[in-house]
Amino acid sequence: MKCAAETSSIITLTTDFGIQGPFVGSMKGAILQINPDVKIIDISHQINPFDLFDAAFLVSCAYGYFPEGTVHCIVVDPGVGSDRRPVLAISKKYMFVAPDNGVLSYIYEKEAIDEVIHIKESRYFLDQVSRTFHGRDIFAPVSAWLARGIDPDDLGPRIMDYARLHLPKAFASKDGKRIYAQVIHIDIFGNLLTNIGHDLFESCRERNISKFRLRFGDICIERLCQAYTDLKKGETGAIFGSQGFLELFASEDSLAKRHCIKKGMRVDVVFE
Amino acid sequence: MKCAAETSSIITLTTDFGIQGPFVGSMKGAILQINPDVKIIDISHQINPFDLFDAAFLVSCAYGYFPEGTVHCIVVDPGVGSDRRPVLAISKKYMFVAPDNGVLSYIYEKEAIDEVIHIKESRYFLDQVSRTFHGRDIFAPVSAWLARGIDPDDLGPRIMDYARLHLPKAFASKDGKRIYAQVIHIDIFGNLLTNIGHDLFESCRERNISKFRLRFGDICIERLCQAYTDLKKGETGAIFGSQGFLELFASEDSLAKRHCIKKGMRVDVVFE
Amino acid sequence: MKCAAETSSIITLTTDFGIQGPFVGSMKGAILQINPDVKIIDISHQINPFDLFDAAFLVSCAYGYFPEGTVHCIVVDPGVGSDRRPVLAISKKYMFVAPDNGVLSYIYEKEAIDEVIHIKESRYFLDQVSRTFHGRDIFAPVSAWLARGIDPDDLGPRIMDYARLHLPKAFASKDGKRIYAQVIHIDIFGNLLTNIGHDLFESCRERNISKFRLRFGDICIERLCQAYTDLKKGETGAIFGSQGFLELFASEDSLAKRHCIKKGMRVDVVFE
Repeated sequence: MKCAAETSSIITLTTDFGIQGPFVGSMKGAILQINPDVKIIDISHQINPFDLFDAAFLVSCAYGYFPEGTVHCIVVDPGVGSDRRPVLAISKKYMFVAPDNGVLSYIYEKEAIDEVIHIKESRYFLDQVSRTFHGRDIFAPVSAWLARGIDPDDLGPRIMDYARLHLPKAFASKDGKRIYAQVIHIDIFGNLLTNIGHDLFESCRERNISKFRLRFGDICIERLCQAYTDLKKGETGAIFGSQGFLELFASEDSLAKRHCIKKGMRVDVVFE
Repeated sequence: MKCAAETSSIITLTTDFGIQGPFVGSMKGAILQINPDVKIIDISHQINPFDLFDAAFLVSCAYGYFPEGTVHCIVVDPGVGSDRRPVLAISKKYMFVAPDNGVLSYIYEKEAIDEVIHIKESRYFLDQVSRTFHGRDIFAPVSAWLARGIDPDDLGPRIMDYARLHLPKAFASKDGKRIYAQVIHIDIFGNLLTNIGHDLFESCRERNISKFRLRFGDICIERLCQAYTDLKKGETGAIFGSQGFLELFASEDSLAKRHCIKKGMRVDVVFE
Repeated sequence: MKCAAETSSIITLTTDFGIQGPFVGSMKGAILQINPDVKIIDISHQINPFDLFDAAFLVSCAYGYFPEGTVHCIVVDPGVGSDRRPVLAISKKYMFVAPDNGVLSYIYEKEAIDEVIHIKESRYFLDQVSRTFHGRDIFAPVSAWLARGIDPDDLGPRIMDYARLHLPKAFASKDGKRIYAQVIHIDIFGNLLTNIGHDLFESCRERNISKFRLRFGDICIERLCQAYTDLKKGETGAIFGSQGFLELFASEDSLAKRHCIKKGMRVDVVFE
C-alpha cells in the first residue's frame, strides 16, 4: 500500500512562476481538466526564479499542515527540457511531485520517504509536451492523476539516486561555546530565520553559562524572547519561531531592511 | 440561535503575511485538516505589515458581498504571543475571527454585532501553539471549526470590552461650508478614497450653492463625475466610488503617483 | 444548443485589480452568493492597469487548458460606467464574460466563437450597480449565473459589431528573407515572447539557407534552441516556447532586465 489517502482531493502548488503571467492559470486548468473535483491550494508562486533552496525550504515549512493524502506539486525547474527527471516522492502521508533537481531536499530530510519514482509514463502527461513548460504539461497533470487515485507505480520505476542539495547546517564548536550558522530565509516582516534548531541551541546553552551573544556583521543580539511583544518597538531580539528555528527580529520593524541583510549571511552564537 | 447559516462552507482570509512565504499555505493546510470541504477565499494577504487600520478598512469593503454564514478570518497581529485576546464577533449573517486589537473596528461600526466572544478553548487550536504564529495555530483552526458548525459559545465567554480603533471621521463645519476629511485608502489605480460619505457631502451641498472645491495639498478638484469616463485621459475629478465614499481620481492615470500622495493626507471640501 | 457543458462549475478571473485591495475578494463574494458551489480560479489580477492588450494575450494563453464549460470572466475595464457594453462570447467549449473593449480580441482570433451577446438583463446583476465597479456588480454575478446554467440568450441580444483591438502581427518580406515582428509579452523570467509563430518562421527558413539572425536594438541572436538548457548560464538564444511563439531568452538570467527591454520592442529576423 502506498499513501494512506490515495483519493486525496487536495493539490498544493509551489512555483517560481509568479502571478502575473499565464503559467499558474494554465497549470490549474490542466489539473482541473483531469480532476475537476480537486481543491488546488497555492503555497507560493513567488519563489525567486530558479531558487531551488528557497522553494525547498518553503515547502518544508508548510506541507506538514495539510491533510493526509495531499499531493504537493513543486515546480522550480531551471533544467526544464533537459534530461533531468520528473519524480514522485511518497511518504505515509503525502505525495510530492517535482523535478529531480534537489527541490525536495528538505522534504527528504524531514519526512520519512518510502520511495521515489522516476515519472516516465507519458499517458499521464498532456498530449503535447513542450520543452519549456513541464509545470503545465507534466507536473500538473501527473499531480491531478495522483489525486484521482492512480497507482504511483504506474508512473515509472523506483529510483535511489535522486538529487539532493547540500543544505547549509548550523554546527557547534567542540567546547559548545560557539554555533556557526546562516540566515536561511527572510520573511515578509524582515525577520531573519537561521538554521539553528532548538536542540542545538539548548545543548550549547546547558554546557555554558546562560549568557550568549548572536553576532552577524556588526550587529549583536543578546536577548532571547518568548514573544515578539517582549520587546519595545524597534528593539532587537532572538526567538524560536513557528518553524522551530532561531529567528532574529526587530519588534514591529524589518531587521533585514534596517541592516540590508541578505539570505546566506553568516550568524554566530557565542556562549560565555 | 447564533449565526443563521452555521454550516457555512466559506472562510475568507485577510492577513499581512504576503504571498511569498509559508504563512498563508500553512493556514490553509491547518484549515483543511479540520474541514476538508470548506472553500477558502483570499480577500488579501498584502495588508501593510501591522497596519490594523488598512486591514480593518479592506475587510469592511468586501465582507458584505459573501454569502450568509461566511467565516471571515482576519490576522494582522503585531501583538501575537502577548496577552491580547483572540476574539469571535458574530452578526446575523457572518462570523469574524481575529485578534482583539481593533482590526474589526470598521466591522463593529458597519455590521450589527450580536456578541463578541473571547476565544479561549484550546481544544479548537492546533495541538502545539507557537508564540509567533497564531494565524496558523489558533485563528485558522478556530475558523475551520466554526465553519464546521461548532457552537460559538463553546469557544469562551462573551466580552464587552473588545478593542476599537479610533477611526478618522470626516466632519462638516457648523455652517456646512467646509468638510474636513482624510484620504483613508489608495487603490491600485492610484485613486484616493476619502472618508467623505454621500450623506455628509449632500447635506452640505444642499445648504450651499452647488459649487465646491476639493483641496488637498496644492491640488484642487472642482468636478463631480458620475463615471470615470466623464473625464478625458489625465483630467482629475471626484466621484462617489463603489464603497460609497468620495473618491479623487485622474482618468486612466494614477493621481497618487502623480502627486506623491500618501494615505492619511488631509482633504478639505469647500462649498461656496 | 449553446455551450456543451452549461452546468460548468469553474469560473476563471483575469483582472487588473491587483491583490492588495478589496476588488477581487468582492467579486468572489458576489459570485459565491449566487453560486456557492462554483470553483473560482484566478488566472491573474496583475494585468497592468487598463492594459487591454496584455489581458487579451494572457487569457489567450491560459483559457484553453480549462475544462469544457468553464466561464472565463475578464475585467480590464477603463470604460466602466460609460456606455461600453458588457458582452458574453460563446464557443463550443467556453463562455467569455467581459467588457466590449477589445479585451477578447485574441479569443476572437483563436477560438471559434458562435455568438456574442450584449449583456443587458439587469436581473442577473447585483441589486445596486455602481458606476465604478462592474467587475463586482455585473461581470461577477453574470458569470455566476452562467455557471449555474441560465440560458445565455436571456442575457440580451446577439451583436455582430463587437470591439476588436488591432493586434500586432509578424509578417515576412516578399522574398522571405526578413520577418518583421514585435515583443508582445515579457514573462517573469525576463524572456521575450515575440509574435512570430512557428509556421511563419519555418516557411521563411525553408526558402533560405538555415542561418538566421534575430535582431532587436543592438542585440543579435543566432541560435535556435530546443530547450533552455541547450545554453550555458547567461548565453542567449531563441526557442519556440510553450505558447508556440518564438521566444528570446538568456539562460537562467533575465534578458529583459539585462537590456532594459520593454513590451512592444521591434524584433527582426534576417535569413541569409
